[in-house]
Amino acid sequence: MIERYSREPMRSLWTEQARLERWWQVELCVAQVLAEQGVIPQEDVQEIASRARYTLEEIEQRERETRHDVLAFVEVVARSVGPAGRWIHYGVTSSDIVDTALALQLRDSLEILLRDVREIREVVGFQARTYAWTPMIGRTHGVHAEPITLGVKWALCYDEFGRAERRLQWAKEEVSVGKISGAVGTYVHIDPEVEKKVCERLGLRYGASSQVVPRDRHALCMSVLATVASTVERWAMELRHLHRTEVKEVLESFAPGQKGSSAMPHKQNPVRLERLCGLARLLRGYAVAAWENVPLWHERDISHSSVERIIFPDGMILLDFMLGEFASLARTVRVDPQRMKENLERSQGRYASEALLLELVQRGLSRKEAYEIVQRVAFTSDSSGQPFWLAASQDPVMSKWLSEAQLQKLGSLEGYLRHVPAVFQRAGLELEGENCS
Amino acid sequence: MIERYSREPMRSLWTEQARLERWWQVELCVAQVLAEQGVIPQEDVQEIASRARYTLEEIEQRERETRHDVLAFVEVVARSVGPAGRWIHYGVTSSDIVDTALALQLRDSLEILLRDVREIREVVGFQARTYAWTPMIGRTHGVHAEPITLGVKWALCYDEFGRAERRLQWAKEEVSVGKISGAVGTYVHIDPEVEKKVCERLGLRYGASSQVVPRDRHALCMSVLATVASTVERWAMELRHLHRTEVKEVLESFAPGQKGSSAMPHKQNPVRLERLCGLARLLRGYAVAAWENVPLWHERDISHSSVERIIFPDGMILLDFMLGEFASLARTVRVDPQRMKENLERSQGRYASEALLLELVQRGLSRKEAYEIVQRVAFTSDSSGQPFWLAASQDPVMSKWLSEAQLQKLGSLEGYLRHVPAVFQRAGLELEGENCS
Amino acid sequence: MIERYSREPMRSLWTEQARLERWWQVELCVAQVLAEQGVIPQEDVQEIASRARYTLEEIEQRERETRHDVLAFVEVVARSVGPAGRWIHYGVTSSDIVDTALALQLRDSLEILLRDVREIREVVGFQARTYAWTPMIGRTHGVHAEPITLGVKWALCYDEFGRAERRLQWAKEEVSVGKISGAVGTYVHIDPEVEKKVCERLGLRYGASSQVVPRDRHALCMSVLATVASTVERWAMELRHLHRTEVKEVLESFAPGQKGSSAMPHKQNPVRLERLCGLARLLRGYAVAAWENVPLWHERDISHSSVERIIFPDGMILLDFMLGEFASLARTVRVDPQRMKENLERSQGRYASEALLLELVQRGLSRKEAYEIVQRVAFTSDSSGQPFWLAASQDPVMSKWLSEAQLQKLGSLEGYLRHVPAVFQRAGLELEGENCS
Amino acid sequence: MIERYSREPMRSLWTEQARLERWWQVELCVAQVLAEQGVIPQEDVQEIASRARYTLEEIEQRERETRHDVLAFVEVVARSVGPAGRWIHYGVTSSDIVDTALALQLRDSLEILLRDVREIREVVGFQARTYAWTPMIGRTHGVHAEPITLGVKWALCYDEFGRAERRLQWAKEEVSVGKISGAVGTYVHIDPEVEKKVCERLGLRYGASSQVVPRDRHALCMSVLATVASTVERWAMELRHLHRTEVKEVLESFAPGQKGSSAMPHKQNPVRLERLCGLARLLRGYAVAAWENVPLWHERDISHSSVERIIFPDGMILLDFMLGEFASLARTVRVDPQRMKENLERSQGRYASEALLLELVQRGLSRKEAYEIVQRVAFTSDSSGQPFWLAASQDPVMSKWLSEAQLQKLGSLEGYLRHVPAVFQRAGLELEGENCS
Repeated sequence: MIERYSREPMRSLWTEQARLERWWQVELCVAQVLAEQGVIPQEDVQEIASRARYTLEEIEQRERETRHDVLAFVEVVARSVGPAGRWIHYGVTSSDIVDTALALQLRDSLEILLRDVREIREVVGFQARTYAWTPMIGRTHGVHAEPITLGVKWALCYDEFGRAERRLQWAKEEVSVGKISGAVGTYVHIDPEVEKKVCERLGLRYGASSQVVPRDRHALCMSVLATVASTVERWAMELRHLHRTEVKEVLESFAPGQKGSSAMPHKQNPVRLERLCGLARLLRGYAVAAWENVPLWHERDISHSSVERIIFPDGMILLDFMLGEFASLARTVRVDPQRMKENLERSQGRYASEALLLELVQRGLSRKEAYEIVQRVAFTSDSSGQPFWLAASQDPVMSKWLSEAQLQKLGSLEGYLRHVPAVFQRAGLELEGENCS
Repeated sequence: MIERYSREPMRSLWTEQARLERWWQVELCVAQVLAEQGVIPQEDVQEIASRARYTLEEIEQRERETRHDVLAFVEVVARSVGPAGRWIHYGVTSSDIVDTALALQLRDSLEILLRDVREIREVVGFQARTYAWTPMIGRTHGVHAEPITLGVKWALCYDEFGRAERRLQWAKEEVSVGKISGAVGTYVHIDPEVEKKVCERLGLRYGASSQVVPRDRHALCMSVLATVASTVERWAMELRHLHRTEVKEVLESFAPGQKGSSAMPHKQNPVRLERLCGLARLLRGYAVAAWENVPLWHERDISHSSVERIIFPDGMILLDFMLGEFASLARTVRVDPQRMKENLERSQGRYASEALLLELVQRGLSRKEAYEIVQRVAFTSDSSGQPFWLAASQDPVMSKWLSEAQLQKLGSLEGYLRHVPAVFQRAGLELEGENCS
Repeated sequence: MIERYSREPMRSLWTEQARLERWWQVELCVAQVLAEQGVIPQEDVQEIASRARYTLEEIEQRERETRHDVLAFVEVVARSVGPAGRWIHYGVTSSDIVDTALALQLRDSLEILLRDVREIREVVGFQARTYAWTPMIGRTHGVHAEPITLGVKWALCYDEFGRAERRLQWAKEEVSVGKISGAVGTYVHIDPEVEKKVCERLGLRYGASSQVVPRDRHALCMSVLATVASTVERWAMELRHLHRTEVKEVLESFAPGQKGSSAMPHKQNPVRLERLCGLARLLRGYAVAAWENVPLWHERDISHSSVERIIFPDGMILLDFMLGEFASLARTVRVDPQRMKENLERSQGRYASEALLLELVQRGLSRKEAYEIVQRVAFTSDSSGQPFWLAASQDPVMSKWLSEAQLQKLGSLEGYLRHVPAVFQRAGLELEGENCS
Repeated sequence: MIERYSREPMRSLWTEQARLERWWQVELCVAQVLAEQGVIPQEDVQEIASRARYTLEEIEQRERETRHDVLAFVEVVARSVGPAGRWIHYGVTSSDIVDTALALQLRDSLEILLRDVREIREVVGFQARTYAWTPMIGRTHGVHAEPITLGVKWALCYDEFGRAERRLQWAKEEVSVGKISGAVGTYVHIDPEVEKKVCERLGLRYGASSQVVPRDRHALCMSVLATVASTVERWAMELRHLHRTEVKEVLESFAPGQKGSSAMPHKQNPVRLERLCGLARLLRGYAVAAWENVPLWHERDISHSSVERIIFPDGMILLDFMLGEFASLARTVRVDPQRMKENLERSQGRYASEALLLELVQRGLSRKEAYEIVQRVAFTSDSSGQPFWLAASQDPVMSKWLSEAQLQKLGSLEGYLRHVPAVFQRAGLELEGENCS
């Protein structure tokens, strides 16, 4: 449990107390269904429901002797109930309780993560529409390419978190599975109907299991978490780049009273964004461990348990934190359209090189010839500091083909942005009434 | 490309030649759609379609100069076409071609993997039904637990590969996505309709993209591959355990002429199963690399490219090989029901300890008391070599509660197997007409 | 911080309190050296040393405003000191304090781990000598190969932990490095001599740094931890295999009052060994995250910080726990030499197949011919249940070459064990006076 | 084997042919030592040495039947020799040959990597001295911090590759270990002296082994490779950042005839640097697989073999390529000191904020007060576009303390660079006679 990076209600879902509560929820539910089936006397179940008590301390103390946590739990609760307590854990094995309770925790956690992602999409969708027509330079390889708008970036982000949502749904479907099938999963001492009823009441599905719910389900879940974390990193990384001093188009918010550096008072650093990039690394490491949990021996060994005590709480808590942080950061970034405009102009029109290339191709030049001419002009413009149009109009070959006016028209910003609505539409966002004026 | 572990047709899908063919398929399709839109003259497109030629060697030679593989390709093809060749690659960028072609390769690969998994399910389902009622000891922690049947194991395997199939479908859905949206994904020099039509003709979907198809899609795909590989490992590991000299219940097949060890002629080793466990480790490593590919800079950098040149071919080829091997191994294992019976009997009835425990609980003992009595009896039986029933009937406390006849009845094998059909049913397999006689 | 798997004194080394104490240790040391250099008045340093106070709560409260933990710390301490407090943190930056303090924690942790490993070697070396001549079957691929002794296994274990010790020394050398070089590592506001003196007093080395100690050092350290954890897993896995019901040669200890399964009282499971295998998976995941921390941006970003808040404490604590557990498990295993003898005899002498093969080669047969004859005999023995010697003496070809007496002599156990001392010697263990009688 | 990213002589070291040659080198060496020991007749060894022949094709064909590569090899060679061929592989097992041959390949590979690293250090050390006094802004969090020089960056790079060299030495020490100890490592059919002599002749060390050289050695080696790859990534990342359009201080070289983008002729992208970042991801994945190879079963299983067929050749080849590329890139980067100067001036003197802070502390202000004043001034300068000195001298509080002349002096570039030689000295580089004039 990582206090520093945890938020409610996720945090409470993964305390030792919460774990025990779910264990008890499952144990009691099993007893109740067994009573309905006539296996346990009704009055004993009522006794169980009304008298059961346990504390974390008692259980830990008892575990020191049994060296088995579920047995310690069962013994402590049974003792508090009296004679009827003997029916607790009747016909089941530890994993029936532990894995079914875990399924509840995982399902509830994934629901929180789903809400987190939906909140991000709301924020990011709003930003996309707000900056739909705010032009900026698009960059590939960190180098100026062709103009886009800030809204286009946000639209892609919105779209990617839409995929994150779908994947979290898959993960939820995979792990919302209980099992009440006894020692080696063969229902020897408990009727298959009990599993069905217990899982239905708890809002879980059920399936074939060995002594445990098969761990490929959990591995898939953790690998989805790592994928979603990588998505958060992708967009945190984007914003970190935009925050750089030389770019400075979008800045991480800076609170009153905040200090950026212990040594240098002038600093405003994108520290929260950087943290998100760091945390993604952890999630990836957890997923690797989850995969290694899949090949348990025969009907199960318990090597997965220690791993899961760490990667499930920490993985869920960290991703919840990351998503919450990203929503907050996306909401509060400071956008500088003026700086975007300045940066856009820094390449002196060279971003129009493709437009020129295609124009020459239309006029009959081979692509190779056209490319070489335009490349030469662009490099001249770059090294000399001349505007691209000027360099082009002074190029002996180029000037034969196009007048300076024609050249300038090819690089008009309007042309570059005319299909922004198409990008939005593909990203699942609508862009009503706006245009590039 | 790993020759040793590759199979057709997967192998052919990932040759350099196959890659170029798909590039050309995409380039040509774009040109054809552009012609329909009136951007390129119809006769030029016909010229392109009929005259285009290229060889790997020419392209590699050209690439040495351009240091850009797609450009080398485009220039070589364009040259072979003549003047009409200038329309090749019109309005698109390398990633439009590369990523759309990659989507074709990934989609086709995933279809092969899906067929592989279906083949496994057929074999494994057959084995499950064949051995539905073949009893063996269930083992948890490598230690005898309670009886199951060999068919139950295979049924769980069948079920897990069912999940593998579903996950591969998800992966296919994620990556079967093309993009024809130009340099920074804004359709500046190509109409959004072109993307739609090209993708439809190629059997792909399309979506919002930067210069590239977003890499979270590919990361999800690779993490599914790693999950499926871990499933193969889980079941290969199961069979390796059963092959051990001391267990020897299920043996990897051994071909005539085969030799198990260069030094020891008596050996028959489960080497193919072991290999599957090894290969799963590689797939997990590839997935980690795929996640790190997600946070590309801005509209893209190309750091993912070198990674993908390796992890896509190798990942797909290795998993195809693993699945094929597993199907073959599952089909050809040698099962020894007699040895299963002997092993079952080695624990001298101690597997019935839970039955006894529950019987005592029914008779009113607390679970804790009952547990301690039965544990004592079981440990006595184990250390003395006495059959469990005998030890129980000689135990001063136990004998007060149950007669030897009652005791023996509790451990009858029939009882342990009576819910085998329920397990099968949950695994999606039907078990008709059989029973435990 | 993982309570369940933590031990003293490692645990105390990684509390929030311990972290702050080391921060203060470094800050004070810097101030003292600065006073010696005449930068800070001597009386002010005495004031600082005697009056400085801070509590975790104050700092956390202050951090909520500054959003900078070191600054919060500095401000709280400075306030407690009064006017002289202004000299605290003079000329340094947060990383000077944090990274130097971290070096102290890492160094101290590695010293604990080194002690742990030495303890393991003592236990394991003792076991090696104790069971130097206890014969058992060697197994490759899980299949009977040729005889070894239990002591040989332990000797290899002893040797491998010797390598673990050497690697931990390397790790310690890598990370016991402080830095007091200011904001971007250029000693602008602090003399390079200060770094030298501070590091010497703290028992650290120093080197070139950017704003931070370069993270390749920490990555190497974490990858050593993962390697050592994999070594623990290798030997825990060995013991898990020997604990299997069908093998049962070496058993994990089982405490009085312990319960192996909540459902099945007869069970004794190697749960502590399994846990070690699980925990190794986590360590590997941490190392992956540590590598991703290496390419920080320019003079540093802070993306590594969140990662390190988790992987350093958890990694050190878990590995310390693993090593302690392994020492305890190695010390308390129950060895069953009788069972080893029985298992050895289960292959009915087939382990001598290589001896036969070589004998036939000596007599002039080609290796291929000899191999095929011996393989045939061994397989016949295996399928028929005949002793190997009998099957050999009845083989029409084999019987031409060797009499039954000759055959039996080839498989004598003594021959198999005669070079045990050589193995020990290579493992760095001496085996005095013992022999195979 | 990854053709695209392979260089000689590393490439040739890992062909199938090279592997077989080393197998033969080891087999022959064993036979020769056995002859010296009198086990094999001298004339037979001469026969073996002079007549042995094999081709890859023959072996592959034979392997199809034996399903065992070493046995196929041994049989093919033995056949070519005639009767004396029966002594080939006498008393050894496949792993004796395979692992000892692998040790040769790994040792030779590591020597190549060591040469690569030394070449990098030469180039980088030269660049460090060349640009020792070329000022540029230092950046933390991507944000302007305080001035450094380009040489300081290179010096840190030089230093880090020094650590890479040391680690590769460790790796070489770990894996340059042969084994000739027979089936389960007990020298049953071969004298321990043979191992000693064979290893000495091959230039290898030897130690205790099971059937195989323990895999913790190889895991350590692969994790060193991943660490070195992460170091390459760290510095490739640095250069990518400096190449960005907005920064443009150091550019990846661009060859005549090169084309940066298929669509945009104006582009010059740092594609080779990006590729290095990608390849590092692969190396990390390989190391994870290598760790999972450590816990082989008992005296060995063969699950590591398939993994190693891929990660050793590919890992060595890729890292060799990466190091070669980095050396080439470091040698050919284009440095723009003028742009560095312009960028340095973009923060209008705000980088002096710490100098001011410390000056105020010296004058008696508390650090907190001083910080808040300087922060206010810096933010005012930033938002207004005023030079820092001007903003400071106009600040009502600040101006009470310092005159504009005093203020300006605090930010002089000379002061920032005066300890550059100390950084160099710590990095193991000397800086003679130069100074900051």
